Amino acid sequence: MKASDSAAARRCLVVVLAAGEGTRMKSRKPKVLHALAGRSLLAHVLEAISAAGADAVSVVVGPDREDVAAEARRVRADAAVHVQAERLGTAHAVLAARDEIAQGYDDVIVAFADTPLVTAETFGRLRAELARGAAVAVLGFEAADPNGYGRLIIEGEDLLAIREHKDANDEERRVGLCNAGLMALAGGEALALLDAIGQDNAQREFYLTDAVAVARARGLKAHVVVADEAEVQGINDRVQLAQAEAALQAQLRLRAMREGVTLQAPETVFLSADTRLGRDVVVEPHVVFGPGVTVEDGVVIHAFSHLEGARVRAGASVGPYARLRPGADIGEGARVGNFVEVKNATLGAGAKANHLSYLGDATIGARANIGAGTITCNYDGFRKHRTEVGAGAFVGSNSSLVAPVTIGDGAFVGSGSVVTMDVPADALAVGRARQVTKDGWAQKFRETFSGASTKKAE
Amino acid sequence: MKASDSAAARRCLVVVLAAGEGTRMKSRKPKVLHALAGRSLLAHVLEAISAAGADAVSVVVGPDREDVAAEARRVRADAAVHVQAERLGTAHAVLAARDEIAQGYDDVIVAFADTPLVTAETFGRLRAELARGAAVAVLGFEAADPNGYGRLIIEGEDLLAIREHKDANDEERRVGLCNAGLMALAGGEALALLDAIGQDNAQREFYLTDAVAVARARGLKAHVVVADEAEVQGINDRVQLAQAEAALQAQLRLRAMREGVTLQAPETVFLSADTRLGRDVVVEPHVVFGPGVTVEDGVVIHAFSHLEGARVRAGASVGPYARLRPGADIGEGARVGNFVEVKNATLGAGAKANHLSYLGDATIGARANIGAGTITCNYDGFRKHRTEVGAGAFVGSNSSLVAPVTIGDGAFVGSGSVVTMDVPADALAVGRARQVTKDGWAQKFRETFSGASTKKAE
Amino acid sequence: MKASDSAAARRCLVVVLAAGEGTRMKSRKPKVLHALAGRSLLAHVLEAISAAGADAVSVVVGPDREDVAAEARRVRADAAVHVQAERLGTAHAVLAARDEIAQGYDDVIVAFADTPLVTAETFGRLRAELARGAAVAVLGFEAADPNGYGRLIIEGEDLLAIREHKDANDEERRVGLCNAGLMALAGGEALALLDAIGQDNAQREFYLTDAVAVARARGLKAHVVVADEAEVQGINDRVQLAQAEAALQAQLRLRAMREGVTLQAPETVFLSADTRLGRDVVVEPHVVFGPGVTVEDGVVIHAFSHLEGARVRAGASVGPYARLRPGADIGEGARVGNFVEVKNATLGAGAKANHLSYLGDATIGARANIGAGTITCNYDGFRKHRTEVGAGAFVGSNSSLVAPVTIGDGAFVGSGSVVTMDVPADALAVGRARQVTKDGWAQKFRETFSGASTKKAE
Repeated sequence: MKASDSAAARRCLVVVLAAGEGTRMKSRKPKVLHALAGRSLLAHVLEAISAAGADAVSVVVGPDREDVAAEARRVRADAAVHVQAERLGTAHAVLAARDEIAQGYDDVIVAFADTPLVTAETFGRLRAELARGAAVAVLGFEAADPNGYGRLIIEGEDLLAIREHKDANDEERRVGLCNAGLMALAGGEALALLDAIGQDNAQREFYLTDAVAVARARGLKAHVVVADEAEVQGINDRVQLAQAEAALQAQLRLRAMREGVTLQAPETVFLSADTRLGRDVVVEPHVVFGPGVTVEDGVVIHAFSHLEGARVRAGASVGPYARLRPGADIGEGARVGNFVEVKNATLGAGAKANHLSYLGDATIGARANIGAGTITCNYDGFRKHRTEVGAGAFVGSNSSLVAPVTIGDGAFVGSGSVVTMDVPADALAVGRARQVTKDGWAQKFRETFSGASTKKAE
Repeated sequence: MKASDSAAARRCLVVVLAAGEGTRMKSRKPKVLHALAGRSLLAHVLEAISAAGADAVSVVVGPDREDVAAEARRVRADAAVHVQAERLGTAHAVLAARDEIAQGYDDVIVAFADTPLVTAETFGRLRAELARGAAVAVLGFEAADPNGYGRLIIEGEDLLAIREHKDANDEERRVGLCNAGLMALAGGEALALLDAIGQDNAQREFYLTDAVAVARARGLKAHVVVADEAEVQGINDRVQLAQAEAALQAQLRLRAMREGVTLQAPETVFLSADTRLGRDVVVEPHVVFGPGVTVEDGVVIHAFSHLEGARVRAGASVGPYARLRPGADIGEGARVGNFVEVKNATLGAGAKANHLSYLGDATIGARANIGAGTITCNYDGFRKHRTEVGAGAFVGSNSSLVAPVTIGDGAFVGSGSVVTMDVPADALAVGRARQVTKDGWAQKFRETFSGASTKKAE
Repeated sequence: MKASDSAAARRCLVVVLAAGEGTRMKSRKPKVLHALAGRSLLAHVLEAISAAGADAVSVVVGPDREDVAAEARRVRADAAVHVQAERLGTAHAVLAARDEIAQGYDDVIVAFADTPLVTAETFGRLRAELARGAAVAVLGFEAADPNGYGRLIIEGEDLLAIREHKDANDEERRVGLCNAGLMALAGGEALALLDAIGQDNAQREFYLTDAVAVARARGLKAHVVVADEAEVQGINDRVQLAQAEAALQAQLRLRAMREGVTLQAPETVFLSADTRLGRDVVVEPHVVFGPGVTVEDGVVIHAFSHLEGARVRAGASVGPYARLRPGADIGEGARVGNFVEVKNATLGAGAKANHLSYLGDATIGARANIGAGTITCNYDGFRKHRTEVGAGAFVGSNSSLVAPVTIGDGAFVGSGSVVTMDVPADALAVGRARQVTKDGWAQKFRETFSGASTKKAE
């Protein structure tokens, strides 16, 4: 390997360690399947390493963890999955991918599935150190409180040793630069280094950190790449999970604001890693974006809205209290108002559904007006059916549209109607009973319950 | 009293001072009835001292404060209530409970109803000092800014004096250990010490803190127990009330996460002191738990949900925008969706009410499906009536179920129906008008208003 | 001018610089029209200077910024608007108002439309320095990190110079007192000082800060007024906009709590600058107040409520999940419950609308009960019509009130009715179809779809 190799031309394998039990999570779900910003911890790592140019990925899982394997393949179809049958330390875990490492990559990176905030850029910096001639590149961070962490002892650009806290002398304990765990190994040396790691320690485990000492003993170079402490934070319990979520949300919000989005109260807005918000989008307080949301320029998302798997086109207005579910597609300048749920439904440009409605499995035409309380009755207990409302149609309040049903362009549905048959374009449909009035009835009814009139309604 | 007495065997009286006017609250409600985490300040103190093993409780209230007395008795039925007729200082207030103190307890603790975050463990530590032979045990804290507080002057484990800020010399002012106000007195000495306190000060009041000087003058020992500043924070205005709420919420959230609950955004989730959340419960952002909620394992509480007096059984899904009110009992694997209110109603296992519904005074059978917009019409202006929906029944969207009414097992209600009569098992009920369609009507209607067609809908 | 002039008698012109392009906002909207707490940045400045007694206001805008001019006139009808055609620096911008400055005011203040948190009190303190004899009064602040700011070099009360960071020597760089940009000029000197400012700098611009050196050179006095850093924070991008919003919200919340309002979780409550909350109002977590809201004493605003342009009278209860829109007027002791929207509608004393309703363009009488799911059908596609519900009337659940329609006092509407004709007082109206029941139908329906019975409902 020559330092002059361009990183781009170097082939890269990432071994992702995902076999930890995560008992401190107190969960039946494996730790690495817990989520941040709508994406599993494992998926965050896989996305980052893919963005950093990983040509191949080996995921090391514990026994009987088909769920972890499935998640790995969902995110990265070409992921190789290896089972670590016994828990004999991090170096042992990496060697579960021995066959893959032996394929002859230029860069072999060891990542941890429970350390999800490490960026593609940081993985790239580790690779760059290999390209510069290091046999080992270790990720470090300046710890606010280094107590308990392994210290990185450096001299110039050389990492001399990783000293565990308990083994460190007073001077070494004053070092604030600590070991984050992640490491990159020169592909040509990787297997030899890993195989040379022993288990001469109290736990009788094979520690990946020992790769540094092994490399140094062979006259190879070890370098350090320094990242922020927040970026390298591992997740061991739900408090740390919440802290990582907070750190990630802060990043996502900052990025959105810098791109021209107004977040009136950023600390109350929750984004997914894949949320796309256009310029001059205004997001009021208390909004949640689940995965798969795209919001175009100039949209206002009012308070207390919840969006997931939805597209909102330019200039539309959503909420307050709007719920857009997967397949919602809100047209240009359209309005979805309070207590309205939209699922697998398209609203045309300028269409309005302002109050207390459920629009499921529907196509609403441009400029159509959906009255308050309108319900698409899309489910008959067995099948889902579609509702079509034409352009410029007017659906009166509190109507029930019993799908499958089509309301033609410009048609009019009277308030309170149950629509079971198609309505032609420009026609009126009314389906409601005639009002009957009985004079004095209420007076008598009240008298029947005289004395009960102070009862409190709920 | 011997130091070898076991604390468990010692009988304990707690005198709770609850007579403060709380004028800085600017409230018509007495200060100690303001609430934190769904529970009055007074109730927090009573719960903590009960957990610390108080055998008897004396609550000292101001004149005409039957509301405070009632709250004391609500929480602790055996509470004795004493009225402090004049405001002559804290020692004077304690002596309102003179008869009770004279009963011969081993430990007499003085607690403050406006200092609600002191834990049972801290009360226990005060008692332990009495058991070790102290005549007085004072609660102290290391103040971030000691300015204005009384300083605790100690030597070894002995509290020599409590020096008020204005009386302290420069050296004493550098002491950070401050007086929190709470105190425990050896029962055998308590009355004698309290009676010996004079009113030789500018305000001519009897100060409880002087018990230390009195005890020391008699050769008795005074000890200090140190707590966190946040724990001993008294509440005098609504800003401090909000700060205490924040501190308490932080504790409740931390405890939940440590027990295996995922709080995606803990700072947006509000718990009550009695909220019980099972393992692998996931709580999305923006959720409020009022008093009396139990959520079993594996439940997901989606964003913007509000629960109070409700039980949610294992594996159920609640929200977003679900409101569970007292008496809601959501069965295993059941689903309560958006804009759905459930009050005094049971949903069987696997039942679903996913959209825009009100279920009040109802029993919904297992696997029943409640369509969007369904309303139980449970109130006739005077009485509440029940709705029964059988197992596996299907209630079509936008139906009105006029209680009292029973829908049998496996029955089917057509969308948009008003159901006023019982529906037998496996039957169909439809109560809706036949649709009438008038061709061209909408076209003519629009022409009538030609030129007005751009009017903006709201 | 004599120092003994009373400030009240002095006439004051404020020149508001509002011509900045604000490119870092990445917005099609001019920066000064972005909003904080429901009010544009420009409006905040205009409100503050009006409260500080500005007799006249000159707003300097960029070319073709009629929108900014319109906002200025909306807030302050007498505002003079001047266009700065070229961008030649702050002093040049001020001179766009040359004719107005020449009118002979006692105090000429230069304010910045993108520095919206400066209070009336601070503007008053600047004016007071002029009244004390200063020719120039500069607003300063102690910077947490002074790096990059101009330093205020003072001696006693005299401001000797404003030293730009790049021109400052080591000693000057240790000065923490920095220039906030705002300035007050003695009216009699203002034009002469401004005209004497040159453009001898790298950018060839005319800098307002040079007024200090010009004044000092003429033997005039310059003074400094010190404000908090947060107060003088200028807004250049959306991150700073969010920070200013946070600072302003913190102020508004603190003021409310100090006035006797309980904010259970102040950090989740968003107020407008004009929100008025009475004593013993309780606001639960997650509430948004848009502009124009007045809430009287003793009201409870439950979680997840959204109010705008609404009045809530004493003792009423709102929410959770209530949306009050402009024109909502909720009577004494009335209740608006969950998923209820009220727009341009009055609820009488003690009236109740507790669940899933839309009340638009309506008058609801005292003690009337609006059943769950009630919809006022106020819009026919072209016109809005009113609904009147009399005192003590009972509207059954899931009713549609097709406006224009009147329900008389004490009348009763059966659940699920569509009401299209007026209902006399004390009468009963029912408009719903008769229920038809078909035994065994559901059983057969299910058999048709046998095997599909496990299909998941959504």
